[in-house]
Amino acid sequence: MSGPARATAHANSRAAVLDVIRAAGTISRVGLVNATGFTGATISTVVRRLIDDGLVVETGRAESTGGKRRVLLQLDQSSRYAVGVHLDHAGLTYVLTNLGGSVLARMTRAGAGAEAPSAVVTRMAGEVDALIDGAGVRRGRVLGLGLVSPGPLSPASGMRLTPPLMRHWGDFPLDRALQEATGLPVISDNDATAAALGEHWSGGTGGPSALAALYMGTGIGSGLLINGIPYRGAGGNAGEIGHSCLDMEGPECWCGARGCVEALAGPAAVVAAARADAGLARAAGLAADSPAGRPPSVIADFAAVTRAARRGEPGARALLERSARCLAAAARTLANVMDLELLVLTGPSLAIAGSVYLPVVREELDRAFSRATHPVAVRLSRSAATAPAIGGAAMVLQSELVPLRQGPRLPENLADAEPAPVQPSGI
Amino acid sequence: MSGPARATAHANSRAAVLDVIRAAGTISRVGLVNATGFTGATISTVVRRLIDDGLVVETGRAESTGGKRRVLLQLDQSSRYAVGVHLDHAGLTYVLTNLGGSVLARMTRAGAGAEAPSAVVTRMAGEVDALIDGAGVRRGRVLGLGLVSPGPLSPASGMRLTPPLMRHWGDFPLDRALQEATGLPVISDNDATAAALGEHWSGGTGGPSALAALYMGTGIGSGLLINGIPYRGAGGNAGEIGHSCLDMEGPECWCGARGCVEALAGPAAVVAAARADAGLARAAGLAADSPAGRPPSVIADFAAVTRAARRGEPGARALLERSARCLAAAARTLANVMDLELLVLTGPSLAIAGSVYLPVVREELDRAFSRATHPVAVRLSRSAATAPAIGGAAMVLQSELVPLRQGPRLPENLADAEPAPVQPSGI
Repeated sequence: MSGPARATAHANSRAAVLDVIRAAGTISRVGLVNATGFTGATISTVVRRLIDDGLVVETGRAESTGGKRRVLLQLDQSSRYAVGVHLDHAGLTYVLTNLGGSVLARMTRAGAGAEAPSAVVTRMAGEVDALIDGAGVRRGRVLGLGLVSPGPLSPASGMRLTPPLMRHWGDFPLDRALQEATGLPVISDNDATAAALGEHWSGGTGGPSALAALYMGTGIGSGLLINGIPYRGAGGNAGEIGHSCLDMEGPECWCGARGCVEALAGPAAVVAAARADAGLARAAGLAADSPAGRPPSVIADFAAVTRAARRGEPGARALLERSARCLAAAARTLANVMDLELLVLTGPSLAIAGSVYLPVVREELDRAFSRATHPVAVRLSRSAATAPAIGGAAMVLQSELVPLRQGPRLPENLADAEPAPVQPSGI
Repeated sequence: MSGPARATAHANSRAAVLDVIRAAGTISRVGLVNATGFTGATISTVVRRLIDDGLVVETGRAESTGGKRRVLLQLDQSSRYAVGVHLDHAGLTYVLTNLGGSVLARMTRAGAGAEAPSAVVTRMAGEVDALIDGAGVRRGRVLGLGLVSPGPLSPASGMRLTPPLMRHWGDFPLDRALQEATGLPVISDNDATAAALGEHWSGGTGGPSALAALYMGTGIGSGLLINGIPYRGAGGNAGEIGHSCLDMEGPECWCGARGCVEALAGPAAVVAAARADAGLARAAGLAADSPAGRPPSVIADFAAVTRAARRGEPGARALLERSARCLAAAARTLANVMDLELLVLTGPSLAIAGSVYLPVVREELDRAFSRATHPVAVRLSRSAATAPAIGGAAMVLQSELVPLRQGPRLPENLADAEPAPVQPSGI
C-alpha cells in the first residue's frame, strides 16, 4: 500500500470497532452496538476476533446500572506498533509508537543530502532495524511504516514534484524500494500533512474541527485536518499555502508562478537576501559557498540569520520581520479559506525562529474573517522536530484503526463495512 | 432548524437508505443491504415505511441472475418538493424542485434593497405561496425552504456579519422570521456555498472530489464542496477567498484587513475606480449618485463598465483586465490550498463579465501547483443566476436524504443511525 489515496485503507467493521474503542478508552459491547449501529451479533463476532488477535483486552466491569454489570473492553496498547520516518534533505527522524500513538523510541540520523536515493534507502532499512530492535519490539507486531517526505507527492509513486534540493529523487520509486528493503508495508505522505496529524495525535490540540499545521522547513507548506482526518484534495496536494500569491508583480517562484509567499519570504529567500548583503552575511557568520555537489543547508543558514537577529543585527531583524509579515498574510488567507479553529506553527525553520513569527501571525489572525464568530487560535508546536515522524506512525495506525473517512459518501463507506448477516426471510 | 450547523440533519437509517436509492436510480432490497451494511430486517422495515410514506415506489424487477428476480425500488420524484430562495440586495430568486432536485418552477422579484427586513419577509412569504400554488404542488409535500443570503452567517441566527449594503439586516433573526411567515422549516446558508451545491445538483460537474464555486456578486467569495458535501469550516464561513491578501501594502478592506482581493479588484472596487475617472464614468453611462437611502447598485454599474469594455473603451478594459488578473491570482491560491479539480465561475457579476475573466483565470490555473498531477478545470456556470437558489433547495433535500456527513467521525454518524435490532443473546 502506498500513496495518499490508500493512506486510509481497511474501511471495515473491524476498523470501525477498533476506532470506537480507541476513542472511548474503555467501552462495553452494548456501548459498541450503540456507538456503531452494528448488530449485537456482529459486535460479538468482531470483538471475539480482536481479542483472539490480541488487539483488545477485557478489563473489568462497568458500574452496575441496575442489571448485569458489563465487561469493559480496551485496546492492548502494546499489541501492535508503527514506525514513522521523516526523510528530509537535512535529517532523518525515526519514531516507534504503540497502538495508541505513544512514542516508545525516537532517533535522528544524517539527512538525505546529495546521497544516491538507493544508498539512502539501504541505510534507512538498517536504521529502522536498529529502532525496532533497540525498543525490544517483535517485528511481526509492527503494522507498517509511515514515510514522510517533502511534498508534493504523486499518487503513483511517492515523491514526484520534488522541491529543488531533492530533485534527484524525482523518478525514484521511494515507497516501493523502502517496502522491499524493510519488509514493512509503507504508506507515504508529505511532511506538512504528517505534521498536522502528528500534532493531533500527540494531543494538546483539543480536537478542533479545522486545524492547519503551517510548516516551514526549506519551503513553506501546510497540512490540513478536518475533524482529525487529513484533507488531501483531488490529487493529494492540498494545503500548498506556500504558493499562494502575495504580489502579482513579485519574483518568479520555482513552481513557475509569480509572487508566491515562499519565493518572497520563505527561509531560502531570507537566506538568499542575507547572502546578497555582504556585511550581513559576514555578521551572521554565513559560510562561504560550499563545495560543488553539496548545496549549503538553507536551514542551517536560516538558523544563523535568526541568531544574528536575536543579537540585534538590524539587517537580520528586518529580513525576519518582513518574512513574518508575509507568512502572517498567507496564514490569514489560509484561515479565511478553511475557516480554521487552530493554526499550529511547525517545521524545522519555525522550530528555530517561531518566537519571531508567532506574535506577528497572531496579530494578523485577529483580523481573520471569522473573528466575529470565533477566534483563530495560533500556537507553536511543542514537538516541531518530531511531529512529522509521529504523524507518519499515526498514518499507519489510522489506516488500521480508522475507516475510510476521506471517501465520498457514507453509504459507500458502509458498503466497505462488513455487512451484518442478511436475514433473507425479512426481504 | 436553521444555520449551517444543522443544514445536514436527519442522520438516520431512513436518510441513508433514501440517499442510496437516489444515487443508484433503481436498486433492490438486497442491493440496499450490500450498500448500507444494515441487516435485511432493518432494510425491510425502512423500505416498507418509505413506501407507506410515498417517497419510494416499486418499479418492476431486475434481470434474473439465476435465482428469484428482485423487485427494484426508486424515488417517487414528485412525492416531495423543496423551495430555494436567494435573497440579495439586488434581487430575490425563487425555485421549486422535486425530490430529485429538478427545477419545476422559478421566479425572480425585486431585491431586498433598502426595505425594512420585516417587510421583505412578509413579501417573501407571499411570493413563496405564489411559487408553490402556481406549480400546483400540495403544500404538505414541501419539505422546507433553503434560504440563501450574502455571507458570512453566524450559526446562531442567520446573517450576522453582513456586508456593507445589507448592514441593516445585521441583527434581524431572518431564518426564524421566515419560518414563522411561511410555516416551512428554514435552512440557511451563504450564497457562495449554495451556488456550489447548485452547480453540483444541476449536474454537469462530473462529480469532482474537490469543487469550488468562485462567486462574484457585489463582493467575492467561494463555496467549497468536498465529495459533493459543503465544507463549511469551524464556524460556517469557509471559502472566504475574497479576503485573501494580494498586496500587503494594499488598501484597507471593509473586513478590517489590508490588500484583500475584494478590496483591490471586486466589482465594488471596479465601479469605484470607474466613477473616480469622470471621462470613463461618462463613457460608461454610470448614473450620477442616487438619492440618499438608496445606494447605487454595484452590479448594475459593473454591467455598465463591462458594456463599455466590450465597446472597446480603453479605461474600462484596463479596469476589467486588472480585476481579472487579481481574481485569477486569488483563484490560484484557492486551487493550491484546496487542491481543486474543478473551479466554476459564478454569481451575478461573473454572469455579466465571465467571458472577460474566464481566459485569464484559466491561464493562471495552468500554473496551479497540482498541474503535474492533474489539471484544474475552469468553467463558467451554466446557471449563474439561479444556482444559489437551486443550491438552497438542494440543502433541504440533502438534509432529508443525506446523512450527517460534515460530522466528525463515522462511529458518531453511525451512532445517529437507527441501530439495528440488538440481539442480547449474542452479547
